[in-house]
Amino acid sequence: MKTPSVVVVLVGTQLPENLGAAARVMANFGVRDLRLVAPEADPSDPRALALATHGADVLGAARRYDDLHAATADCVRAWGTAAVTRARPRRVLHPRGMAALTLVEEGTHALVFGPERTGLDDATLDVLDGVVQIPTDPACRALNLAQAVGILCWECSAAEVPTDALERPPPPAARGAFEGWWGVVESRIAASGWLPDPTLRPKALATLRGAFQRAGFTEGELRTLHGFVRALSRDV
Amino acid sequence: MKTPSVVVVLVGTQLPENLGAAARVMANFGVRDLRLVAPEADPSDPRALALATHGADVLGAARRYDDLHAATADCVRAWGTAAVTRARPRRVLHPRGMAALTLVEEGTHALVFGPERTGLDDATLDVLDGVVQIPTDPACRALNLAQAVGILCWECSAAEVPTDALERPPPPAARGAFEGWWGVVESRIAASGWLPDPTLRPKALATLRGAFQRAGFTEGELRTLHGFVRALSRDV
Repeated sequence: MKTPSVVVVLVGTQLPENLGAAARVMANFGVRDLRLVAPEADPSDPRALALATHGADVLGAARRYDDLHAATADCVRAWGTAAVTRARPRRVLHPRGMAALTLVEEGTHALVFGPERTGLDDATLDVLDGVVQIPTDPACRALNLAQAVGILCWECSAAEVPTDALERPPPPAARGAFEGWWGVVESRIAASGWLPDPTLRPKALATLRGAFQRAGFTEGELRTLHGFVRALSRDV
Repeated sequence: MKTPSVVVVLVGTQLPENLGAAARVMANFGVRDLRLVAPEADPSDPRALALATHGADVLGAARRYDDLHAATADCVRAWGTAAVTRARPRRVLHPRGMAALTLVEEGTHALVFGPERTGLDDATLDVLDGVVQIPTDPACRALNLAQAVGILCWECSAAEVPTDALERPPPPAARGAFEGWWGVVESRIAASGWLPDPTLRPKALATLRGAFQRAGFTEGELRTLHGFVRALSRDV
């Protein structure tokens, strides 16, 4: 078994049993870094511990974060999970394709899972690098949270480098570095008065962000891009 | 999503929660035929129903069997699951390889899972067509039963015909037909007095059975093989 270069990020998890079962199956596949964003359930709840078994140390070492940006700042990619695609165009990946990317793109990849009842909300999906859909029977779409964690961790542990990916792309910068640059871009756009129509603006920003994010800018490229934005907005 | 041509056979399941969680994840991947061999847990237990959610109909329609032979008589293959390989040589498959076989070999394949605490015993493993091992971290081998069911059902739903398997083998006969023939072989061997040493006999029988079983005899071949055994034992 390969040890996947992934972390699991659980957003707003509601049931302690799912925290425990997720930690257990992570340990099965060598994924040991569990991150909790604003969890409703308590990882020290006895119901979580009962299901964690040999994943108790994964559960015990889980770190809490206030938001997804903080939880994924050191990762090169953050892949969300969703049962259905929304209308807005988005990068949608098959689990096997996502798993192959964890080998092709160097660095840590985050697997992000939403609350049991609602899944990830649109605002969160917008800042992710893409959405992984686990194909299921249309009549029975909703996977148990820990089952979804298990299948994606399994896929990453069983992944193979695609034979047509002989040339690796340069390693993307950590997501925190991208967010830092994107924050500057957003504030410059706001200051520019471009697209004052409030109904058009979010879509244009999302399109820009998606295109930039997909490129997987390196650290060196981001330094150049900071200069580029400063230059365009005449703030050199 | 492809609908896998598989059934799930749970042998001696101890925890009702696992019956429910297995039924749910089966439904997610379009596997609707659940078979219970001598279950310790009751599929109508409220704890099973609570976890089954949209798999409640799968759970409710589960059939009970006294033994594995009866539960898999109409299947062409029965694949067991085990965390560790025993000393005796056996056909050991990766989940992805097994999943590909469900497409290559026509007919229904059974995925067989043992009791939570002990797994499948040696006597059961001996009559299966092979053992599927889900590679896991050596320090955390034990997968939750429903997670193992989930990963194998997922693999079968995501399977692709191997590109080097352009020529399909003839469809094997149902396992019940093979067992009928093997029963005759065993009784003829016993009557022949071959290998009277009781320590050698089980190993020789297991070797023979394994070789025959791997061949995947068709119905027509089994008819010929019945004649062959009768001919050898001078009972024509």
